[in-house]
Amino acid sequence: MCELLGMNCNVPTDICFSFSGLIQRGGRTGPHKDGWGITFYEGRGSRSFHDPRPGCDSEIAELVRVHSVKSLNVICHIRKATNGRVCLENTHPFSRELWGRSWTFAHNGKLKGIKTWPLDFYQPIGTTDSEHAFCWILDQIRRRYPTPPNNPATLRRFIARLAREINQTGTFNMLLCDSQYLYCFCSTHLSWLTRRAPFGEASLIDVELTVDFANETTPKDIVTVIATKPLTEGEPWVIMEPGSLVVFRDGLVVDA
Amino acid sequence: MCELLGMNCNVPTDICFSFSGLIQRGGRTGPHKDGWGITFYEGRGSRSFHDPRPGCDSEIAELVRVHSVKSLNVICHIRKATNGRVCLENTHPFSRELWGRSWTFAHNGKLKGIKTWPLDFYQPIGTTDSEHAFCWILDQIRRRYPTPPNNPATLRRFIARLAREINQTGTFNMLLCDSQYLYCFCSTHLSWLTRRAPFGEASLIDVELTVDFANETTPKDIVTVIATKPLTEGEPWVIMEPGSLVVFRDGLVVDA
Repeated sequence: MCELLGMNCNVPTDICFSFSGLIQRGGRTGPHKDGWGITFYEGRGSRSFHDPRPGCDSEIAELVRVHSVKSLNVICHIRKATNGRVCLENTHPFSRELWGRSWTFAHNGKLKGIKTWPLDFYQPIGTTDSEHAFCWILDQIRRRYPTPPNNPATLRRFIARLAREINQTGTFNMLLCDSQYLYCFCSTHLSWLTRRAPFGEASLIDVELTVDFANETTPKDIVTVIATKPLTEGEPWVIMEPGSLVVFRDGLVVDA
Repeated sequence: MCELLGMNCNVPTDICFSFSGLIQRGGRTGPHKDGWGITFYEGRGSRSFHDPRPGCDSEIAELVRVHSVKSLNVICHIRKATNGRVCLENTHPFSRELWGRSWTFAHNGKLKGIKTWPLDFYQPIGTTDSEHAFCWILDQIRRRYPTPPNNPATLRRFIARLAREINQTGTFNMLLCDSQYLYCFCSTHLSWLTRRAPFGEASLIDVELTVDFANETTPKDIVTVIATKPLTEGEPWVIMEPGSLVVFRDGLVVDA
């Protein structure tokens, strides 16, 4: 199994604190030593860093941790390979373009038989079940909506339906971003936490590090962090219901 | 105008030496201060670094320069914005998937009216004429060849035809890679150089740096470097003919 981390905010925010906790699980406090990757959105563009080596030893991870890349939407994944060998093309997050938007996807879990599901336009570059599932989702969206539906709720409902269909083949904890919305589907484990004023302190579970967010933020900031398991102690993490989709924009849950 | 740099080899090779020269043109020895980007292939996968800031001041550029990422195919671009504002989504190289392969593209020049050319499947994420041209090329390839043609020469001829068609709208110096072949089209300026045994010394034009490749290589290595203008003194760079396409694989020219 792998670990997922996502962030969705109303102002560009760095993910250094949460990333510091998560990356420890990449071979130190967790067994997820088969690479890691992270995608940051900046406007319509996105930038990704991938490394097939363990996160806890990665020089690129150190660059990401120290540098404060600020972003409204982030998807991060550390991998324990279950399907597909350890190499760059099998390292999440995966990206494709649809409707002139950059879509990014990361997945935790195993999907039995998904690689036999027919694909039309999008084809996997690597050999993971995850990338196949991502290509299938985009194929379905594209076929049903050659242009974006006017009502974003239509797309949210459609993505929820697709995620539930894939989930029937195994375990499908997923983060999906279209540069504006962050779609989070919980199959077994996914939690989220919204930080907003008044900000307080938080302490990571995986490494000795405490941050007082009051010093790092302005009163208007709204920052939601999504993770496989809560990353901090003493904060009100919401444990998602299996089978549910939650969608975030500007740091807040978008009503279904 | 921008500067292009490409590399194609028969064994994974680092591009540190050439990159050290090129990146100086990103605001120091050249006016190309509107960002830069580089894509390295590793097997079927690729990794890209993009920075909308000047190359000569970029911390990410420093990471790339110091780290020796080894690759069979590299495309690098430093930008002097002529079309499209300076932001991440307008920073080359651009990437898309076709036939389950990762395609990467960078362009130097201006293309008049190309943004009115109709697109079908691939849509630009940013606003540059370059990304529009890239989407148009992939659209044409996909429509004509839903699966890869058996004979690679067929694809080479088709890409040459597409490049010449685009070139009629302005200036189209281009590097395009499908993870195996590196397609280089010269509209006005593009040069290449193949280094192989017996290796000698080379000195960069843009910065005081000399390397003795005999110490850095094995006798079997074949490394071709492609650049807008020759990067070194005293080596036999081939200045490409305007309107010509040269394709490299394993460091060598593939016959047309």
